Amino acid sequence: MKVERSETETSQPLDQDLLAMMHAYWRAANYLSVGQIYLFDNPLLKQPLESAHIKPRLLGHWGTTPGLNFIYVHLNRVIKQHDLNVIYIAGPGHGGPALVANTYLEGSYTETYPEISQDEAGMQRLFKQFSFPGGVPSHVAPETPGSIHEGGELGYALSHAYGAAFDNPDLIVACVVGDGEAETGALATSWHSNKFLNPQQDGAVLPILHLNGYKIASPTILARIPNDELHALFYGYGYTPYFVEGDDPHYMHQQMAATLDKAIQQIQQIQTDARQHGIVDRPRWPMIILRSPKGWTGPASVDGKKTEGSFRSHQVPMGDMDQQGHIEILEKWLRSYNPEELFDDSGKLRKELAELAPEGNRRMGANPHANGGQLLQPLNLPDFQDYAVEVTVPGQTKAEATREMGKFLRDVMQQNLEAGNFRLFSPDENNSNRWQDVLAVTSRTWMGETLPEDDKLAMDGRVMEMLSEHQCQGWLEGYLLTGRHGFFSCYEAFIHIIDSMFNQHAKWLKICNQIPWRKPIASLNYLLSSHVWRQDHNGFSHQDPGFIDHVVNKKAEVVRVYLPPDANTLLSVTDHCLRSRNYVNVVVAGKQPSPQWLDMDAAVKHCTAGIGVWEWASNDGGQTPDLVMACCGDVPTMETLAAVKLLNEFLPALKIRVINVVDLMKLQSASEHPHGLDDEAFDALFTDDKPIIFAYHGYPMLIHRLTYRRRNHRNLHVHGFKEEGTTTTPFDMTVINGLDRFHLVENALRHLTQVSPEKRAEMESYVQQKLSEHASYIREHGEDLPEIRHWQWQQ
Amino acid sequence: MKVERSETETSQPLDQDLLAMMHAYWRAANYLSVGQIYLFDNPLLKQPLESAHIKPRLLGHWGTTPGLNFIYVHLNRVIKQHDLNVIYIAGPGHGGPALVANTYLEGSYTETYPEISQDEAGMQRLFKQFSFPGGVPSHVAPETPGSIHEGGELGYALSHAYGAAFDNPDLIVACVVGDGEAETGALATSWHSNKFLNPQQDGAVLPILHLNGYKIASPTILARIPNDELHALFYGYGYTPYFVEGDDPHYMHQQMAATLDKAIQQIQQIQTDARQHGIVDRPRWPMIILRSPKGWTGPASVDGKKTEGSFRSHQVPMGDMDQQGHIEILEKWLRSYNPEELFDDSGKLRKELAELAPEGNRRMGANPHANGGQLLQPLNLPDFQDYAVEVTVPGQTKAEATREMGKFLRDVMQQNLEAGNFRLFSPDENNSNRWQDVLAVTSRTWMGETLPEDDKLAMDGRVMEMLSEHQCQGWLEGYLLTGRHGFFSCYEAFIHIIDSMFNQHAKWLKICNQIPWRKPIASLNYLLSSHVWRQDHNGFSHQDPGFIDHVVNKKAEVVRVYLPPDANTLLSVTDHCLRSRNYVNVVVAGKQPSPQWLDMDAAVKHCTAGIGVWEWASNDGGQTPDLVMACCGDVPTMETLAAVKLLNEFLPALKIRVINVVDLMKLQSASEHPHGLDDEAFDALFTDDKPIIFAYHGYPMLIHRLTYRRRNHRNLHVHGFKEEGTTTTPFDMTVINGLDRFHLVENALRHLTQVSPEKRAEMESYVQQKLSEHASYIREHGEDLPEIRHWQWQQ
Repeated sequence: MKVERSETETSQPLDQDLLAMMHAYWRAANYLSVGQIYLFDNPLLKQPLESAHIKPRLLGHWGTTPGLNFIYVHLNRVIKQHDLNVIYIAGPGHGGPALVANTYLEGSYTETYPEISQDEAGMQRLFKQFSFPGGVPSHVAPETPGSIHEGGELGYALSHAYGAAFDNPDLIVACVVGDGEAETGALATSWHSNKFLNPQQDGAVLPILHLNGYKIASPTILARIPNDELHALFYGYGYTPYFVEGDDPHYMHQQMAATLDKAIQQIQQIQTDARQHGIVDRPRWPMIILRSPKGWTGPASVDGKKTEGSFRSHQVPMGDMDQQGHIEILEKWLRSYNPEELFDDSGKLRKELAELAPEGNRRMGANPHANGGQLLQPLNLPDFQDYAVEVTVPGQTKAEATREMGKFLRDVMQQNLEAGNFRLFSPDENNSNRWQDVLAVTSRTWMGETLPEDDKLAMDGRVMEMLSEHQCQGWLEGYLLTGRHGFFSCYEAFIHIIDSMFNQHAKWLKICNQIPWRKPIASLNYLLSSHVWRQDHNGFSHQDPGFIDHVVNKKAEVVRVYLPPDANTLLSVTDHCLRSRNYVNVVVAGKQPSPQWLDMDAAVKHCTAGIGVWEWASNDGGQTPDLVMACCGDVPTMETLAAVKLLNEFLPALKIRVINVVDLMKLQSASEHPHGLDDEAFDALFTDDKPIIFAYHGYPMLIHRLTYRRRNHRNLHVHGFKEEGTTTTPFDMTVINGLDRFHLVENALRHLTQVSPEKRAEMESYVQQKLSEHASYIREHGEDLPEIRHWQWQQ
Repeated sequence: MKVERSETETSQPLDQDLLAMMHAYWRAANYLSVGQIYLFDNPLLKQPLESAHIKPRLLGHWGTTPGLNFIYVHLNRVIKQHDLNVIYIAGPGHGGPALVANTYLEGSYTETYPEISQDEAGMQRLFKQFSFPGGVPSHVAPETPGSIHEGGELGYALSHAYGAAFDNPDLIVACVVGDGEAETGALATSWHSNKFLNPQQDGAVLPILHLNGYKIASPTILARIPNDELHALFYGYGYTPYFVEGDDPHYMHQQMAATLDKAIQQIQQIQTDARQHGIVDRPRWPMIILRSPKGWTGPASVDGKKTEGSFRSHQVPMGDMDQQGHIEILEKWLRSYNPEELFDDSGKLRKELAELAPEGNRRMGANPHANGGQLLQPLNLPDFQDYAVEVTVPGQTKAEATREMGKFLRDVMQQNLEAGNFRLFSPDENNSNRWQDVLAVTSRTWMGETLPEDDKLAMDGRVMEMLSEHQCQGWLEGYLLTGRHGFFSCYEAFIHIIDSMFNQHAKWLKICNQIPWRKPIASLNYLLSSHVWRQDHNGFSHQDPGFIDHVVNKKAEVVRVYLPPDANTLLSVTDHCLRSRNYVNVVVAGKQPSPQWLDMDAAVKHCTAGIGVWEWASNDGGQTPDLVMACCGDVPTMETLAAVKLLNEFLPALKIRVINVVDLMKLQSASEHPHGLDDEAFDALFTDDKPIIFAYHGYPMLIHRLTYRRRNHRNLHVHGFKEEGTTTTPFDMTVINGLDRFHLVENALRHLTQVSPEKRAEMESYVQQKLSEHASYIREHGEDLPEIRHWQWQQ
């Protein structure tokens, strides 16, 4: 397979002056990067370098940094030359010094943090603060102007980039992908995002694969396959790859400039063609493969070992500055950039160099898209109450909760089509999770080939389906971080695939809450459906309610968890989530036909409280009950009410209070979560000393964990998922986990002291008989007993 | 880009008899598959089909099934013809009926489950049990003979396949990758596994990308890019792709046979060349791209909608059998396979067809590699006590725990090199986690290009490093499931990337424990290092101890969690993990120089108990203490001992008991975990009523969750990670989370009633002064106070 080399190889678009100035600007960025990693003082090297000028702990990553700087300088040129709107995503975000250095050079850093002034004192503070207690993190963190991507955990750069580009027709997202990151799964599939990018309505992504050859200790795969394979791989992914390879800076500047010109020209051509003449085919977007030495311009060798162009440049090339000769190496290295040519005596970047940077919001550190809250417009929302399911008597009608939600989302979509700031994301589960009504007003995004029998595909669709939870999550994060809105629907079990991405987003939000200039963004909303209790058909691998447990480990100020028991409560919760900011909202709701409990008024009240007594199902008449039956989640609610009904029949004098929980965080102490009930309110609901049988959607331990400090905790008995599963009937799923009505009754009985031995024996025998009837019936018929399938709550 | 078509396109390797018989065999498999999905009775259609013969609930996936059957039949032919040793991995494992049907046809199913006999009654039971309560799951589950891969969660087929092939030179792993699964991240990067497969010592993987065009509702990406892109993509991934495309069965049989012949011949050629003449270059292994209609041979249309070749075939083509005409469609469909030509009157597959299958262990359903416990040989282990760090006085020496572990693993590696059944896995973190000594006896596996300056790369290396946690996990799972041993080292925060893979493996093990013929396999062992407390340099994104919380949600019988406080305890735990079977062992240990507490004898005793009083650090003299100071994890242990020392100084009369926990599950009740202490033993350690200050490595809530039923729980006060992090000093990490010695002292004070007000004020003021000294020192110097850095426990 022949590699087609670009014609850029011999072109020289930069005149000698510009080239020299760009090279100087790059040296300035490199100088500032090395300074951040090493220097405590003497920022301009006005004195000979000595030990006291060097930080006691050297923390940072040099290896990727000069490459990130090189790309930044070149992007500045094309932004300025063509007045482009560009943001910069640094996949190798551990190269934090590069982004800090460049935003400092262009002035956006000082505008954001005035104490880091553009003078010698400011430069000293810039150096000292890096990776320093009370200073700034070593990575491209939320604190870094111009960033929407930390790059701490690798894999999501390109998904974030595409997420940012959707519905931003004017924006170009330059996305540097490290060759280490390129080995991750999430990144490997994210190249296919180009099948979802519409050149009419979306912006462009310019991926720059940076082959610097090594990870922490090993070479990278993509740096060690022949160029014909590399070319084929990216052609196969649907791009036109352009190679920029070498280590001679002057040659590389010309190469990079010529290639960037070519790429920008192609991007503009693709967009112009599509916008003027319509889209004929999926475009073949350009990408750049930049091969440069790791730790480029750093020390060639340290202690006799190759350093530039080697894995030894990954972090700090000379970790131990007490060692003979290391200070000299550092000083020689710093002086090789000739700082006196770059900065004037006051420490300010020389004017002719400063002029190379774009101005105002065109500076990548000041681009409002990278502080999306600035651009956020609230959604135009229809009144969710208009989608109410009619409930005249609790439990008499059935509905599919997520289908009702889909109708509401359909009109949310419709009302915001023009604004173009709302999308839905799902790993091929939009319809399976019952949001298909949305497809009446928009289609699935699809730029690939189509066939006549395809269903609801369109280039301008706004339902994004790719069978990758990573992509859905990454796209959505990029979309939200640039100031738009969305919802992610997923099978409950498989949302664990993005556990770690959730972690990173929650951490990002937590830090943003402490940064005044970061404006609030729309919350990241999950609908988890096809949940553990109704994956009876797919079996054990599809049965896992643990994401909630994972989520509640994160800071209380950023996470919310809702388990609405029916359609009207789900509608109310959905509306709330779409209006909220800076949270992660997890909504767990079923898609199967299920009993409806609350009319819309009651639903709104119940959701507003987050937890409450269902008086219509209770018979304690507002007095202290004998027994509290609590429930959280749709299936547990149904089983609880069925158990209550049985208890009422056998023990009509028993006073039972039924409590339903929508907002899980209500259970936690007010001191631990802003939604938490105070102890008085909790005790008023759950009593001081009465038995509580709690039927919960997920792992029972979570309820104990949230309530262990509550006064009546010793009487709390939780039923939930005990990690028992297989392909079976829906009711049998509850039976094998002890969440069914019969086990609930049995457990209530165990904790009630006022039941006579005869009655107790009668009830126990009834429960056993029912369970055995169930077991033999399903083994014979393959479905649940008719009395279970057709069970209805009767007032 | 030109697609080179294989010369197979016109070849016809099957003579007409063989072709007819293979086609019949395929029809038999398809018939049995449809039967499993639909039929309750009348398995041979001896009577006209009627409603009573059909299952009440139709659960299963037809769409992928005929393709899986097609591949199975063709693999049978080449196995038999060349006496090959092949296992079959079905990425689209939801096509469970296919694997059940084929193992039934070849006889291995009946040998495993005699009641599913090869006759009409057995066939009826085969059909009924599928997706039926008390029967078998709808997916290729552990219950399915010949499987090491469920395919319930998509993405891991190819990683599992390569894991199985490593060190099995005689084995060919045929791996079907669905085009849905191919969109996942894990799968997209797993194609690069070919850079780690050595044709001398390893077996081969034959990937078969099955383009059936649709997911649940949408087309797939790879089915909708042009063939030249597809070809380039897989050429770029390093394969030679061969296309088999069409829908005419006879044409497709010839195509598939010719292509398989070609692929097998190439595999054998590559292996022969490498084994006879050495390896010159990384081989370009063959792969097959099979494009066939979804739901091939199923109903062309149902209710006027295209079904064969459409997403409507994904699950059950006619879900509602009460609808007019559906029974007729089903009967016509079933009869289209002409069952009477395939099975004799007794229901047995006709002899001439049965002879097409391989025999004995060559049958893919009976291959011992797919029941790896059968092949498992224990490791030849050196005595871990030989690697003891000398500890004459607790706390006086420092060591890097994981580096000591690395020395032990080096010799484990050495002593099992010949057996070739032990590998280490890490996402580019082997050395970072301090296992570099292992590289003295083996290298990193690497089949890519090499440069002179590379460090420890070799084609026959046994340390597997790719920057993908998914790959490490998937490879290791495949390696273990085929009867070998391994250890996975990972940064603690990023192990969350494989949360969901862990889930699936733990579920697999849980089910295997209930299946007598599944022999125990080696445990899946994790070392989590570079842990939350010592990611001070990388910042918040790298600080997350939540994997433990995730793990303990799984069945107690399969998960174990260890937090050894120093090197000798880590060595003891490591030895234990390498000997254990059918568990997931999570070991959390630090890599930084840290105080060593226990000599080897004490370490062995402590680890055997899993929890215990450290008498040398306690002053309760075996009496009831006034205060219990408990700790779990290396940093919490150090902070606890430093706090104890402070308390001893201020309050010499206070009787303090120090408890250290290695085996986290000791805290749980004996009724909930087999390792759990009974209540008497727990109370004897933690007292009935004394305050307990517990310093824990991870999220404090986990300790409450494990102990909430314990008698003295109300007096338990847990310190741990509170989700506060940034780039700072190591000690400051503990301070911002309140885990440091000063906060521990402060909290102890809060719960001690016997301290005089003066003493209390003195201590409180001391603590505040120390914390403020710390804060200003680190902000000035960037490192911890010398007294903190050089702190030592003094007896």
